[in-house]
Amino acid sequence: MKTWNIYLSGEIHTDWRDEIKAGASGLPVAFSAPVTDHDASDDCGVVIMGAESDKFWHDHKGAKLNAIRTRTLIEEADIVVVRFGEKYKQWNAAFDAGMAAALGKALIIVHGADHQHALKEVDAAALAVCSEPSQVAQILTYVIEGQLPTATRAAAE
Amino acid sequence: MKTWNIYLSGEIHTDWRDEIKAGASGLPVAFSAPVTDHDASDDCGVVIMGAESDKFWHDHKGAKLNAIRTRTLIEEADIVVVRFGEKYKQWNAAFDAGMAAALGKALIIVHGADHQHALKEVDAAALAVCSEPSQVAQILTYVIEGQLPTATRAAAE
Amino acid sequence: MKTWNIYLSGEIHTDWRDEIKAGASGLPVAFSAPVTDHDASDDCGVVIMGAESDKFWHDHKGAKLNAIRTRTLIEEADIVVVRFGEKYKQWNAAFDAGMAAALGKALIIVHGADHQHALKEVDAAALAVCSEPSQVAQILTYVIEGQLPTATRAAAE
Amino acid sequence: MKTWNIYLSGEIHTDWRDEIKAGASGLPVAFSAPVTDHDASDDCGVVIMGAESDKFWHDHKGAKLNAIRTRTLIEEADIVVVRFGEKYKQWNAAFDAGMAAALGKALIIVHGADHQHALKEVDAAALAVCSEPSQVAQILTYVIEGQLPTATRAAAE
Amino acid sequence: MKTWNIYLSGEIHTDWRDEIKAGASGLPVAFSAPVTDHDASDDCGVVIMGAESDKFWHDHKGAKLNAIRTRTLIEEADIVVVRFGEKYKQWNAAFDAGMAAALGKALIIVHGADHQHALKEVDAAALAVCSEPSQVAQILTYVIEGQLPTATRAAAE
Amino acid sequence: MKTWNIYLSGEIHTDWRDEIKAGASGLPVAFSAPVTDHDASDDCGVVIMGAESDKFWHDHKGAKLNAIRTRTLIEEADIVVVRFGEKYKQWNAAFDAGMAAALGKALIIVHGADHQHALKEVDAAALAVCSEPSQVAQILTYVIEGQLPTATRAAAE
Amino acid sequence: MKTWNIYLSGEIHTDWRDEIKAGASGLPVAFSAPVTDHDASDDCGVVIMGAESDKFWHDHKGAKLNAIRTRTLIEEADIVVVRFGEKYKQWNAAFDAGMAAALGKALIIVHGADHQHALKEVDAAALAVCSEPSQVAQILTYVIEGQLPTATRAAAE
Amino acid sequence: MKTWNIYLSGEIHTDWRDEIKAGASGLPVAFSAPVTDHDASDDCGVVIMGAESDKFWHDHKGAKLNAIRTRTLIEEADIVVVRFGEKYKQWNAAFDAGMAAALGKALIIVHGADHQHALKEVDAAALAVCSEPSQVAQILTYVIEGQLPTATRAAAE
Repeated sequence: MKTWNIYLSGEIHTDWRDEIKAGASGLPVAFSAPVTDHDASDDCGVVIMGAESDKFWHDHKGAKLNAIRTRTLIEEADIVVVRFGEKYKQWNAAFDAGMAAALGKALIIVHGADHQHALKEVDAAALAVCSEPSQVAQILTYVIEGQLPTATRAAAE
Repeated sequence: MKTWNIYLSGEIHTDWRDEIKAGASGLPVAFSAPVTDHDASDDCGVVIMGAESDKFWHDHKGAKLNAIRTRTLIEEADIVVVRFGEKYKQWNAAFDAGMAAALGKALIIVHGADHQHALKEVDAAALAVCSEPSQVAQILTYVIEGQLPTATRAAAE
Repeated sequence: MKTWNIYLSGEIHTDWRDEIKAGASGLPVAFSAPVTDHDASDDCGVVIMGAESDKFWHDHKGAKLNAIRTRTLIEEADIVVVRFGEKYKQWNAAFDAGMAAALGKALIIVHGADHQHALKEVDAAALAVCSEPSQVAQILTYVIEGQLPTATRAAAE
Repeated sequence: MKTWNIYLSGEIHTDWRDEIKAGASGLPVAFSAPVTDHDASDDCGVVIMGAESDKFWHDHKGAKLNAIRTRTLIEEADIVVVRFGEKYKQWNAAFDAGMAAALGKALIIVHGADHQHALKEVDAAALAVCSEPSQVAQILTYVIEGQLPTATRAAAE
Repeated sequence: MKTWNIYLSGEIHTDWRDEIKAGASGLPVAFSAPVTDHDASDDCGVVIMGAESDKFWHDHKGAKLNAIRTRTLIEEADIVVVRFGEKYKQWNAAFDAGMAAALGKALIIVHGADHQHALKEVDAAALAVCSEPSQVAQILTYVIEGQLPTATRAAAE
Repeated sequence: MKTWNIYLSGEIHTDWRDEIKAGASGLPVAFSAPVTDHDASDDCGVVIMGAESDKFWHDHKGAKLNAIRTRTLIEEADIVVVRFGEKYKQWNAAFDAGMAAALGKALIIVHGADHQHALKEVDAAALAVCSEPSQVAQILTYVIEGQLPTATRAAAE
Repeated sequence: MKTWNIYLSGEIHTDWRDEIKAGASGLPVAFSAPVTDHDASDDCGVVIMGAESDKFWHDHKGAKLNAIRTRTLIEEADIVVVRFGEKYKQWNAAFDAGMAAALGKALIIVHGADHQHALKEVDAAALAVCSEPSQVAQILTYVIEGQLPTATRAAAE
Repeated sequence: MKTWNIYLSGEIHTDWRDEIKAGASGLPVAFSAPVTDHDASDDCGVVIMGAESDKFWHDHKGAKLNAIRTRTLIEEADIVVVRFGEKYKQWNAAFDAGMAAALGKALIIVHGADHQHALKEVDAAALAVCSEPSQVAQILTYVIEGQLPTATRAAAE
């Protein structure tokens, strides 16, 4: 049976990835994600390859090291989920979404109502747009098993 | 040993998929298909992501959710089988056939004699055209194991 | 300046292609389309390569000859417009849409309200869905020149 | 002689595109860009294809129409320049950068020092990062003609 | 208007290419072909890059030089026509057909009835199979202009 | 550990495939091949999908059915070995070689000295050309394990 | 869990590959490399396929045989590590780096300070540049597990 | 008529490019090359985008800027010619050859006898290997026009 590869991109300051994993327990899925330890992610380049006096190159070395992981895993994913949180610029999340779209990946975008207008181009490239991690778990359950959440479904009819 | 991925697209109101699976029992194959629960397939989008007052968007949300499944599985398939039944427009079946053709998949089309002229462009892109699910099982047996159905073969000689 | 290649697929019994061409006059576009002479399209194979006693092969030879034209032009198109008319099965139109989608072409679907539900999977792969050829001309004008139809726009504000 | 296709993505509220074009006058280049009329860009979908009561679908229709233009032109570009301005979320700019990176385009990012850390992943995918449109013109002049700006060069030696 | 690139592969001892060109005069086509001077084709490698004592390497150097031309032109073709003549092994013709098929080119095969069974796998990959160069000219005329040969057509009705 | 997929194309009337398999026993390889039962291969189409009065279509149906197997396996192969025997036209072998070359597969050609000149274009696309199946086994052993045949090697020094 | 494929290209006269493997023990990785037995690598072609009097063809046969291994493994790699040692021209190392870059592989370059200027174009295509095999092991540990070397990290803070 | 795009990579300290251009005068070719002004090529990055105190980043900025030109032109080339001169490491030349090979370009390598063994892997990926620029001009003349140099040819017979 096929194992679905799901890449979880975006916000790293809340536990949304754990929510999805819990909701998807039992499904034949393999989740992957960027390194979510913020400090390690920022400093990995200089820690391993030597300090830089210029902040630009400090960041550059780290960002490229992280790209080894993120690009490889995005290319291998069947589905790329990108969550935009409440704070920060999150341009890397939008960048990942652009890569996923160009690679023809199935794209699921998660964000709150506040970001709707600003994310319209990103949403337009997605096959699903929702606001809660629990909905992502429901989407995976439906897409992979063909099962809809019974309670919700009854309510919707 | 290679497992052949076979995607079974098209008609969802008869048990043709089961016929093929029964006839192909013992072969190293993994079958996949769209969600064949008609109601779930129609309503999945709004059930998970919220109701829509406009039928177009109700359908749109569902169709995109289903596309996460169907496009992923078609891209992964070695062989795409598309069956056109007696009823309905079945444009999604022809659409799947077009995708499979553009992706270079081996395409098997199944339909009755009535549809022959109307399906000529679709048939022209296929590597096999037949009318019965049992023939699909025979094709898979031959393609994968090199074995022809003995009874039928004797009769044909 | 870039010339945009626009392939006009689908219905061949009305003059919708002429309407679009008229509405797009002055734009840097090159339109292409299948052979729209129904009889020629049906018989081209046997006329050139010899008669067939079996209707299936009669159609097969013709459909493949037409595919030389249609696949080449679809692959070269920037935008593929597919119109579904009121009549006939039009599976070749849906097949073309599937090819265009798999090839990553920008897809515009044109159909009346009656076909909305049956075409939902095709519509879900499109970047625009409309009902009138004049809207296609407006879309091309906007996409290429950035100009919206002034009358309509005023009315919408 | 080759004409270089340059796509200018991002900020639409300053005249940075004109600065680049002026600085690159005489080069064999063809510039392209998204529609930079903000209102037209926001409303194009509903103006042409009919009003929507829900803001999400209003934006969705427009964003997809704009995608016909932007994706086609990005795919055709040799070089994609993305400028991040001082204001707004600009997720569409980061999304374009991600698409360009995945498509293997040469990427030039333009932004002020304030955005350096937040754009580190985007910068890491670029072949050049600078802060002024005049530098983009100098880059194009060097890349295409092999000529460096003489005044600046003397100063740097 | 699109210029169709037509590559004429195969037999080099008859004037079939000229027949097609004559029959296609007036069409927007650009024909290309391998070097058809048999001696030059055999000896080009050693003439330019130095003699070889071993026939294998003599041929190898020449075959690779010819491949610079043939592979480039096949990749650029819209339509690849391969003619199998009455004599010789013609494995290079079948090899070209295989390349064209794998590259997704529209393939037209020309051969006499004698070769029908031996060429069945090659024919199965083609969009048209015929026996006369004049038929190729008719196919090109139909595919590009939509015009069928009137005399023949009348006879066929 | 990687399993190498090796497709063995060409001659079906001698036991060369068994020789290679015996010589490669113990290597992490998975061999695949066309159906080598000549009669089954010729008749498979009509046996399963119905008789044809015209030999062309009889062969056509069979050749396409075989293509489902051969194209799928060639696309999945790491290495494609093509053997040209002493007899027959063997155009399908050259066709397979052309497909493999266009797909970027590592190509090994096996043939006797008689065919050297006629196969020069095919050989020119190969990474190895030899005359005996035992050499193919030695090539696989070297390529995968880095081991050269000791006896032969001593003799060559 | 994903197994990362790591190809180790370049220098074959020191034990740098073993250093990386030791440092990466416990990670879900599969390492591959060219044949590192220098004599076997030089002579493989003639040992298996027959002696050549001309050194060019002696080397040519061997280089192509090695290419069966190296190209297949590079295409399958997630990460390509290329080490430039102190001696020799090492053009094959730079060639492998060029292939890896064109194929979109994540590229890690290892070399001493002496080679910095001469390798600037190669380094510019890499996602990481370092000088010690132990750093490659640290990079792999970080990329795959998200763990930085604690001792080094403390020192860097 | 097709214009052939020829990229001339490698050595920048002799006038070999001019020799080829002179020998190819009259052919439908468009030559391209890296920036051959050594100083400009080294300093372009810092001249335009600001000085760097660290030589690595000085070179890095320049190498990436040059990559905008070289990668774009290599991708557009039909034929890539790479010349290895007598001096320097020339790893960028080997890197370009690797990129060209992976992109499926027709590759011509030019070098003296001294480099034969060290370049064997690069030569093995080429369709022609020669030592003089005049031979490249002869190759282009043959490949494009089918004409062999008459004097040389007479001598070789």
